[in-house]
Amino acid sequence: MGDTFALTDTLDRIKPTTALIVGAGYVGLEMAEGLTTRGIAVTQVETLPEVLPTVDIELGALVHAELTRHGVDVHTSTTVTRIARGADRSGLHVDGRDADGAELGWDVDLVLVVVGVKPDTDLLITAGATAGPRGAVVVDETMATGLTNAWAAGDCVVTHHRLLGVTYLPLGTTAHKQGRIAGENALGGNARYAGSLGTQVVKVFDLVAARTGLREHEAISAGFSPLSSTATPDDHKAYYPGAQPITIRVTGDATTGRLLGAQLIGPRGTETAKRVDTYAAALFHHMSVDAMNELDLSYTPPLGSPWDAVQMAAQTWVRDHQLGTQRAALHHTEVPTS
Amino acid sequence: MGDTFALTDTLDRIKPTTALIVGAGYVGLEMAEGLTTRGIAVTQVETLPEVLPTVDIELGALVHAELTRHGVDVHTSTTVTRIARGADRSGLHVDGRDADGAELGWDVDLVLVVVGVKPDTDLLITAGATAGPRGAVVVDETMATGLTNAWAAGDCVVTHHRLLGVTYLPLGTTAHKQGRIAGENALGGNARYAGSLGTQVVKVFDLVAARTGLREHEAISAGFSPLSSTATPDDHKAYYPGAQPITIRVTGDATTGRLLGAQLIGPRGTETAKRVDTYAAALFHHMSVDAMNELDLSYTPPLGSPWDAVQMAAQTWVRDHQLGTQRAALHHTEVPTS
Repeated sequence: MGDTFALTDTLDRIKPTTALIVGAGYVGLEMAEGLTTRGIAVTQVETLPEVLPTVDIELGALVHAELTRHGVDVHTSTTVTRIARGADRSGLHVDGRDADGAELGWDVDLVLVVVGVKPDTDLLITAGATAGPRGAVVVDETMATGLTNAWAAGDCVVTHHRLLGVTYLPLGTTAHKQGRIAGENALGGNARYAGSLGTQVVKVFDLVAARTGLREHEAISAGFSPLSSTATPDDHKAYYPGAQPITIRVTGDATTGRLLGAQLIGPRGTETAKRVDTYAAALFHHMSVDAMNELDLSYTPPLGSPWDAVQMAAQTWVRDHQLGTQRAALHHTEVPTS
Repeated sequence: MGDTFALTDTLDRIKPTTALIVGAGYVGLEMAEGLTTRGIAVTQVETLPEVLPTVDIELGALVHAELTRHGVDVHTSTTVTRIARGADRSGLHVDGRDADGAELGWDVDLVLVVVGVKPDTDLLITAGATAGPRGAVVVDETMATGLTNAWAAGDCVVTHHRLLGVTYLPLGTTAHKQGRIAGENALGGNARYAGSLGTQVVKVFDLVAARTGLREHEAISAGFSPLSSTATPDDHKAYYPGAQPITIRVTGDATTGRLLGAQLIGPRGTETAKRVDTYAAALFHHMSVDAMNELDLSYTPPLGSPWDAVQMAAQTWVRDHQLGTQRAALHHTEVPTS
């Protein structure tokens, strides 16, 4: 919050007309929208090949296009190498290098560096707590630190993930849930944190990007055999005005058919932020991708379809990866036995 | 569909300026919006005490206010007693009677009677199928009718409900799911319909009304001990512009704490239609109201809260009906034993 207030003060004081943002994750993207809305011309530099690297590159490309559509000058696969005071000492000069090694330079009034978070653990580590992944404090599922009468929660502690085990994945929703568990236990309770699924969503201008569960590379690390499919069902029936496609990428396990994760990108107004929650609830209960078709989800023509978009995407996954096998099995049973 | 085409033809031909709708269920409400949007002055007459009788009366009252706000002249607890050709033979005259026995009369260009559906079962009953609740054809969970090589699905058959057992609850979503099961089994498959939860949603002007599972009177009939709570959490964080409250009524079982149902009324744009799906997924998996707090749902300030609105409503239910008991139990364990 200190950073937020300092930034707001700076914006009021220097009234920048240009800004460069280093990083294009959640906060970087939110800042790109915020500064653009204030009338500031924004350049965004991301070292990875695509913006919003928490989703697959094809989905990040949709967010990239949305940034460009709103005038943000996006440079991916580009690394900032130097930030210095500008020649006329009124602004800043930023040097960078793209994937081909070409040197780039920008003169701007403001630079924001938004490249991730680091757990703030000095207090607990000094007191004798154990450091885990990314230096976060190790806690068990009761949020106990192992120190007498000390529970901990939030961005400073490791995350129990329902599919990945112990990891580090700091998120506001997780912090709230962990805090509730820690508080209850500090008062003598016996609560356990049920674990994260890494459910996340961000609004970038008129686009909403959400994910829950695992992407393929994460699923492989966790010992699954992931397969993915992308579908673009409409948010509601096309005959009712205003239907818009949502891009949905479903990942499931090739062996068991189990749902492993989903990524969604949809225009604002397509209820994308809460459609990801249906996948999150399905993941929580270890559902198969196919079983999602059994869920009794709501439908009215202005807001949905008899098979909801999340089910149509599940059906695409089944069609791509399972139906051939099922058809083969069915055909086998049809061979006459006499 | 025949009715729809006939109505559209009539609207084009007689160009009505006034209409009266008998009934204020889903289709009646959708027609009230549709005709108002065409510039027709609409009177709506409902024999029950409130519009949208598929939700509790306090929630139906919000839909009633939305109709009134858009100029619909709503008469609840009012029964239509006679529809006749108008005095000048160019329109229709409708007589009605309100709850106090007062006689009412309206002269209108068009009358729509929208008072429910009746299963069309002549073909199957004549062929020897069995009639069940409301005259619908009895099928098992494989959608088999008991007749050789005859499966049936949709508004003509009984509905297997996950909480109510065999009932009659014709809905488009249900018909699609049943049709898929019937089709698969007709081709030699062995699929079973997982059952309905009665999940429903309707848009009425700028308001969205949704429900899933049971209301109290239905829960009592099914042998539960229901208790309900109403909460009005914002759809997203109040500090981000545009936050609006969603009215959420959660019903749970007093004995087990199990979630039994939820009703939601929210402005369009609050993702109310897909928030009901989280309750539907929780119901599908027999979750307790309290366990809904374990779900890892998405959050970003423009579209949600760290505890989603559906979880805040669940917390209200727990606070109203369970926390006192839990506190008493906790206090009991705190009594010193030595």
